[in-house]
Amino acid sequence: MTEKTQVHPPASEALKPGDSYVQSFARGLSVIRAFSAEAPRQTLSEVAKRCELTRAGARRILLTLETLGYVACDGRQFSLTPKILDLGFAYLSAQPLWQFAEPVMQALASELGESVSAAVLEGSDIVYVLRMPNRKIMSVNLGVGSRLPAWCTSMGRVLLADLDAEALTAQLAQLDAQRLPRHTMRTVASTAELSQRIAQVREQGWCLVNQELEEGLVSLAAPIKDRGGRTLAALNIGAQVNRTPPEAMLETCLPKLLDAARQISRLVQIKG
Amino acid sequence: MTEKTQVHPPASEALKPGDSYVQSFARGLSVIRAFSAEAPRQTLSEVAKRCELTRAGARRILLTLETLGYVACDGRQFSLTPKILDLGFAYLSAQPLWQFAEPVMQALASELGESVSAAVLEGSDIVYVLRMPNRKIMSVNLGVGSRLPAWCTSMGRVLLADLDAEALTAQLAQLDAQRLPRHTMRTVASTAELSQRIAQVREQGWCLVNQELEEGLVSLAAPIKDRGGRTLAALNIGAQVNRTPPEAMLETCLPKLLDAARQISRLVQIKG
Repeated sequence: MTEKTQVHPPASEALKPGDSYVQSFARGLSVIRAFSAEAPRQTLSEVAKRCELTRAGARRILLTLETLGYVACDGRQFSLTPKILDLGFAYLSAQPLWQFAEPVMQALASELGESVSAAVLEGSDIVYVLRMPNRKIMSVNLGVGSRLPAWCTSMGRVLLADLDAEALTAQLAQLDAQRLPRHTMRTVASTAELSQRIAQVREQGWCLVNQELEEGLVSLAAPIKDRGGRTLAALNIGAQVNRTPPEAMLETCLPKLLDAARQISRLVQIKG
Repeated sequence: MTEKTQVHPPASEALKPGDSYVQSFARGLSVIRAFSAEAPRQTLSEVAKRCELTRAGARRILLTLETLGYVACDGRQFSLTPKILDLGFAYLSAQPLWQFAEPVMQALASELGESVSAAVLEGSDIVYVLRMPNRKIMSVNLGVGSRLPAWCTSMGRVLLADLDAEALTAQLAQLDAQRLPRHTMRTVASTAELSQRIAQVREQGWCLVNQELEEGLVSLAAPIKDRGGRTLAALNIGAQVNRTPPEAMLETCLPKLLDAARQISRLVQIKG
């Protein structure tokens, strides 16, 4: 497609799968995502191989990213620049929700001395969007943008509980097909049992997960809701079981968590 | 350019400014950045207008983003999805530095009860890459990815102090041309004075900024250095002047900050 056809598009605006716009943009984004902790710096050939692109194709994308300031090159190796953060930041700043949530979460984390996080559902994963770390409960990799499977996390179950019956059934069927991994002795053993627990979460309006994902990790989650009562995100407190056993979570943390979730929901409903 | 020529590129690999790859990719990224707190949800026409694209061009990009899962559409309005965070996360996870820095910063924040941040230089701005918030000193907008002008922040001066003479001169000339805004009574008044302070930072290996950016905000920064002694990032403690005056910052916080910065530098130098 030439520059000219981009400016003067055909009468039909339908998106064709082979549209070069789709291709080049999708490839560009895949190059950004090719950089990771395992491969923070890569040569042109490495990027091409990792993204299944020709050298020429990879080179065009890398030079484009360099021109735009998203990639730096030290001669032979390419790496991402901090400007890349602007793209994720666009998301965060685009959602008034997170601006309302942050001070409330900060106050909660400092009052309880526990880590407080918020996440949304993305397919069958939860994605961390905000996180107030406290002490050293969570691993380094649970920063903003990191993912965990929804089914065995407290935030995930809160989010799954708000799915339409059809969407939830599809997720459970998918889990059934892959068989539930047993992360600990306590991990829920079947999708039938999981389904019951999700129904209970829907009923009671919060979720406690006791060491189903990792030994020693207890977590409690509640939904942040929009005006129509749909769940926008989940709010969570994570704690170490030896310091804060499940009973203490329910007694001390639950009322405060529900309160914080209600506070954020109200702000979103009024001003969002 | 057709799909075919992308797979079989011309012999010359040179990037031409009019290359459609550059254009479509750059436009795609500009659409992502068009979403903000002021415009979290936008119609096709609004996106087109904001990005100076034709409706057809904007539509193609939005549909591409939707196909890739980065954008959702509720019928009429488009918004970013949390998958967008993967792009910024690619940067964070691509830098071993941040994985080493996080636990050290967390320990420092919890020991001092002050907020601890890390930033890198991006042109004349600092960009926040990690942040351990504590209490309510920092405004909501100082999250990961947010920017501040380097010249009037402690992290900025630490980062500027490591620039080559030529690059620093260029930055100062640019500041001279735009005249330094006086954020508070204490903001440095001239680039000559700024240049002296930066030289002092280079000499002493840390920087204290006392309410030059905002009344009441005192901050202290130190460099994280690579094997060759070059500054990779700056580490910072931000405090409220009434609670932690500059003298207390120097007495209590400075040794701990320098220690944390050295610890992270050593980890990066050994394992990074």
